[in-house]
Amino acid sequence: MVGSVEVGALSEKSNGKVDLLMEEFDPMAVVSEPLPPVVVDNVECVNGEAKTKTREIVLGKNVHTSCLEVTEPEANDEFTGDKDAYMAGVLARYRRTLIERTKYHLGYPYNLDFDYGSLAQLQHFSINNLGDPFIESNYGVHSRQFEVGVLDWFARLWEIEKNDYWGYITNCGTEGNLHGILVGREVFPDGILYASRESHYSVFKAARMYRMECVKVDTLISGEIDCTDFRTKLIPNKEKPAIINVNIGTTVKGAVDDLDLVIQTLEECGYSHDRFYIHCDGALFGLMMPFVKRAPKVSFKKPIGSVSVSGHKFVGCPMPCGVQITRIDHINALSRNVEYLASRDATIMGSRNGHAPIFLWYTLNKKGYKGFQKEVQKCLRNAHYLKDHMRDAGISAMLNELSSTVVFERPLDEEFVRRWQLACQGNIAHVVVMPSVTIEKLDDFLEELIQKRATWYQDEKVRPPCLSAEIGVENCACPLHKILGKLSLGLHDQWSPDNFPVTACFRTLGQKYGTVENLVGSLSRFFFWKLLNPTWQTSYREPDQNQIYKITQLSNQQILTQISKKLKLAKALAGNSIENSYKQFIASL
Amino acid sequence: MVGSVEVGALSEKSNGKVDLLMEEFDPMAVVSEPLPPVVVDNVECVNGEAKTKTREIVLGKNVHTSCLEVTEPEANDEFTGDKDAYMAGVLARYRRTLIERTKYHLGYPYNLDFDYGSLAQLQHFSINNLGDPFIESNYGVHSRQFEVGVLDWFARLWEIEKNDYWGYITNCGTEGNLHGILVGREVFPDGILYASRESHYSVFKAARMYRMECVKVDTLISGEIDCTDFRTKLIPNKEKPAIINVNIGTTVKGAVDDLDLVIQTLEECGYSHDRFYIHCDGALFGLMMPFVKRAPKVSFKKPIGSVSVSGHKFVGCPMPCGVQITRIDHINALSRNVEYLASRDATIMGSRNGHAPIFLWYTLNKKGYKGFQKEVQKCLRNAHYLKDHMRDAGISAMLNELSSTVVFERPLDEEFVRRWQLACQGNIAHVVVMPSVTIEKLDDFLEELIQKRATWYQDEKVRPPCLSAEIGVENCACPLHKILGKLSLGLHDQWSPDNFPVTACFRTLGQKYGTVENLVGSLSRFFFWKLLNPTWQTSYREPDQNQIYKITQLSNQQILTQISKKLKLAKALAGNSIENSYKQFIASL
Repeated sequence: MVGSVEVGALSEKSNGKVDLLMEEFDPMAVVSEPLPPVVVDNVECVNGEAKTKTREIVLGKNVHTSCLEVTEPEANDEFTGDKDAYMAGVLARYRRTLIERTKYHLGYPYNLDFDYGSLAQLQHFSINNLGDPFIESNYGVHSRQFEVGVLDWFARLWEIEKNDYWGYITNCGTEGNLHGILVGREVFPDGILYASRESHYSVFKAARMYRMECVKVDTLISGEIDCTDFRTKLIPNKEKPAIINVNIGTTVKGAVDDLDLVIQTLEECGYSHDRFYIHCDGALFGLMMPFVKRAPKVSFKKPIGSVSVSGHKFVGCPMPCGVQITRIDHINALSRNVEYLASRDATIMGSRNGHAPIFLWYTLNKKGYKGFQKEVQKCLRNAHYLKDHMRDAGISAMLNELSSTVVFERPLDEEFVRRWQLACQGNIAHVVVMPSVTIEKLDDFLEELIQKRATWYQDEKVRPPCLSAEIGVENCACPLHKILGKLSLGLHDQWSPDNFPVTACFRTLGQKYGTVENLVGSLSRFFFWKLLNPTWQTSYREPDQNQIYKITQLSNQQILTQISKKLKLAKALAGNSIENSYKQFIASL
Repeated sequence: MVGSVEVGALSEKSNGKVDLLMEEFDPMAVVSEPLPPVVVDNVECVNGEAKTKTREIVLGKNVHTSCLEVTEPEANDEFTGDKDAYMAGVLARYRRTLIERTKYHLGYPYNLDFDYGSLAQLQHFSINNLGDPFIESNYGVHSRQFEVGVLDWFARLWEIEKNDYWGYITNCGTEGNLHGILVGREVFPDGILYASRESHYSVFKAARMYRMECVKVDTLISGEIDCTDFRTKLIPNKEKPAIINVNIGTTVKGAVDDLDLVIQTLEECGYSHDRFYIHCDGALFGLMMPFVKRAPKVSFKKPIGSVSVSGHKFVGCPMPCGVQITRIDHINALSRNVEYLASRDATIMGSRNGHAPIFLWYTLNKKGYKGFQKEVQKCLRNAHYLKDHMRDAGISAMLNELSSTVVFERPLDEEFVRRWQLACQGNIAHVVVMPSVTIEKLDDFLEELIQKRATWYQDEKVRPPCLSAEIGVENCACPLHKILGKLSLGLHDQWSPDNFPVTACFRTLGQKYGTVENLVGSLSRFFFWKLLNPTWQTSYREPDQNQIYKITQLSNQQILTQISKKLKLAKALAGNSIENSYKQFIASL
C-alpha cells in the first residue's frame, strides 16, 4: 500500500526537474575522503560511511605483550630472600597500577567503590559451595548460609516466594545467561531462541553451544528490541515454542527492552503462557530497575522464566559474580530429565566460589533497599549531568531514559580511550555511570575530552563522525547534523521519502521554508534525507526511479559534492540568506 | 567358544552330586538381613546386596536449613553501630567454623594449606580478565600478565610451545571440561563423545548441554577406562569421529586412564589422528602426574586436543579455579565458525576472576617444579601410609598406584562422615591425601575411625559392607572375604566358573586343598564364587543348569545359609581341621 502510493508520488516527480538535475549528477565523482578511518572493532569507515564488515580475528598467534613469567625458585632463595623481595616488588608495582587504573575508569559497568576490609580474614579459607546451594554437600568449608540469604533477598526484589524459586550465585553475567537459556531449552527442547541484535554476545554463544535455532530481532535506535520486527519473526514460527532473551539494559546503549510489550506481542501472536519462556538478562540494570520510577517492572508475577544480574557491577565485588533466579518448577523439570546423575545438578559450574556470596551478603546488609535506591538516583542524575554537558560542548551523545549509560562519539585517540577504559563499538563509546563515578570524575573526564577534541579536530579535514545511524539524528552533533539543526530543516522520520507521499512532503517543506525547492532542486531533498539517514536504502527500483536509487548508494562526500553543485545552481534562483546559510554550513563541516 | 566349553563342563557336573545337594536348596528361605541399610546416595542396601537405584531427587522445595538473612538497615544504624556489631559477630563466628572445618577435612581434593597474606592488598580491586587472555580489553583493572605467565608454565609442563597453545584460567574443573568438550565438538560437529562411567559428572552434563551423542564406556575395578569395552563401542561407530574424555584421576577412585592405551585402541580401530579429539580431564592429577615416576605422560607431543586441571585442588586457592590448555589451531577453527562475534570469543565465561591467576602465579613462583615434586611424593607416601594402616586394622581399602586417593569402606555413621567431610558414593568413601593432609591428621582420623568402628560393629548383627564389587576381592576386608582370605581358598579371576572348565578347576583345587570337594560338595564352589563376585551373573540358562543360575540370584545371606547347611553335611565327611576353620569363619562374620 505504502509502496504504491510512493511509486505514484515519484512518478509524478520524475516528470519534473529530476531528469534535468540528474544530468549533472556523477556518482563516480568520488571526492577522496579526508577523514582517516577510525580504528574500530567491527566497522571500517570508508568515505565517511560506516561499513560493517567482519572483524579480522587475530588467528594463529597468542599475543604475549605483557607476561609475568613464573620462574623456578633458586636453591638458596629461602636463605637470601631474593625471590620474596622480587615478588613483593612485582606486587607493589601492580598494586600501584591498579590504583591508577581504578581512578581512571569509566567505560565498564563495574562499581569499583567498595570496602571489604572486614572480609579479608576469610581469604585464608578455600570456600567452595560446590553444586546446589540448597543441597548440603559434605564439604564443610562453604558459605551456603550467606548464599541462600542473598538469593532470598533477590527473590523478594523480583517478587517470587521462597518456595517457588530456585537460584544460585554464578561466576558472571554470562553464566546467568547460559543458565537461563539452558533452562528455557530444557523446558522447550524444540523452542526457538529470539534475541535482539543488541543482546549480549553470550546469548548467541549459548545458542551455538546448545545447538538451538536462533532468530535475531531488530532494534530501535535506542537499542530496545523492535517488537514490530519481533512480531514479523514470531508469526512464521508459530508451531514452535519461543524462548526469548529480554535485555534489562543492553551492553552498549543500556537500553531496557519493554518486557510488557514483549509479552503482549507474544500473546497477540497466539502464544499461550505455556508456549514461551522469557529469560531477563538484567546483568546491569536488573538491580537498578526496581529503583527507577516509570521503569517496567521485572517481576515473577509476570510470565517470565528467569532473571539474572551481575554482582560485580552495581553492587561491586572484587571478582565477577552474578545472581540467577528461576522458577523451581523449571528446575524440577530439568532434574527429572537427568537420568545419569545421582543428585540434582542444576548449576552450570560444579565447584563454586564461596567468597562471592559473602561479599554480596555484606553489601546488601550494609546498603539495603534504601541504600541502593539512593545510589541508583545518584547514578541517573550524574548520567544526565554528563550527557547534558557533552551536548552543550557540541558532542554527539545519547542517554536512554531508564539508563545510566551515556553513549557518545568515539574519541579519535586510542590512547584516550585506553586511559579512561572506555568500551567502544564502531563509532560509539560509552560511559556507564556507576556509584563509583562521581561528578568530580566526570568533570575531569569532560574537561580532558573537550581539550583533546580541540586538538583532534583543529584541522578542518578531520571531522567528528556522524552518529545519526547509531544514536539518532536528534542526538547527533556531527558537523552536518549540527548545521542541519541550525538550518532547522526539520526532516523527521515521518517525512521519510519511503513513508510519505512526496507531494505532501514538499508541500510541508514549501510551507515551512518557502524557497527549499528553489534552493537545491527537487531531488536535493533526497540528498538531505540520505545524509540524515546514512542507512536509508529505498525500495524503489522502478526504471524511472533509478536516480533515487542511485542517491541511496552515494557516500556522504559524494552527496556533499552534489549539494554543492546544486547550491551553485540554486544561487541564481535563491536569495542571499540561503547563500549565507550555505557558507555557514560549509564552514562548519 | 568359552561358553560351549563351560556348558560341556557343567553338563558333566550335573550328573554328579549337584542334584542331590539341590534337594535341600531353598532359595526362598531368605534370612532377614540384620544389617541396617546404609543411607547412601544412589545405592540402597537390601539384604546385604547393593542395589543401584535412582536417587530420589529433592524436588519441589528448596531447603533453607541454614540461611543468614539479609536485613534492611535501620535508620539509626550508622549512629548506634548495632548492625556493624551484628555483622562483625556473624563473621567472627563464621571464621571460627571455617577454622574448625578446615582442620577436619579429608574427603575433597582441596589443598587447604596456603598463605596468601601478601595478596590481601589486592582484595580492594575489582580485577576482571574479561574475554580472551591474549587479547587486551580496554578494561584496565586486569591481571592478564599474571594469567599468561601461569599459562606458559602449564604449557611447558604439558610440552606445548608458546605459539602453539591457547588457554585460559577457568572458574573450576567443570569449566575446563565444558571447554575441552566444546572445542572437540566444534572440531568434529558430528563426533561421538566417549567417556568412562567413572568420568566426572560434568562430562555427561556437557554432552547433554551440547546435544552430543554420548557413549559410556565400562571401567575396570580400579576405576580406569576398560579399553576392551572401548574398542567394542568404537567399532560400530567408525563412520563418525570420536571425542574422548580421558580421566587423569577419576573423581571417586583417583584412577588414571591409560592415555597411551586409549590412543593405541583408537589407532587399532582405524581412527587416524585427524578423526579423534582427546580431552584430558586432569582436574586433580593433571598437576601431580608429571611428578610421578611410571605415570603415563600427559603431553601435547601425543595426539591430544586439550588438558584441564583445577587450581584450587593441588595448588590450593581460596576460590575454585582451573587451567585449560588447548591447541591454538583448534581455537582458530572454532573462531572461524563464529559469524556473529566481533572478536575471538573462545572462553566459556565473559567476565573472569582476575584474582585467581595471581594466586596461582604466586604459588607456582614460590614452589616451582621442585616444590610440587616434593609435595606429590609426600602425598603419595602419606596415602600409602593411610591405606596400609587401614588394611592392618582390617578395613577394606584400595589405593591406585598413581593416586593419592584412598578408597575405603563407607563409615556407618553419617555424623562421622560429615565431621571428616568425606565424599561418599554407595558403599565407599574416600580420603584424598593433599599437601594439607599430614601424618598427624591421618593418625587422628585413623584412631577415631577404628574406635568408632568398634562401636558400630560391636553387635555381631551389624557387619561392615562387602566392597569386592567396588574395590576388588583382594582389597575387601569384609568378614566374608577376611575369612576366605584366611582359608586361602585362593579363588582368583582365572578360576571363574565362566572362564574355566570345571573339571580343570576342580583338579587344581583338589591338588591344593585335598578335601575341598568333601567339604562343601561340588556346588559350593559356585556359592563361594558368588560371594567373592557379587555381580557375577552366569550366562548358563540351559534347563539342566538352572541350579547354577539360581545361585547367581541369591543374596549373600542366602548363600551363607546354604553354605552353613552344606558345612554340616560336610562335617561327617571331613576332618577336624576344616571344622575348626569353619568355626573361625563363622565367629568372625
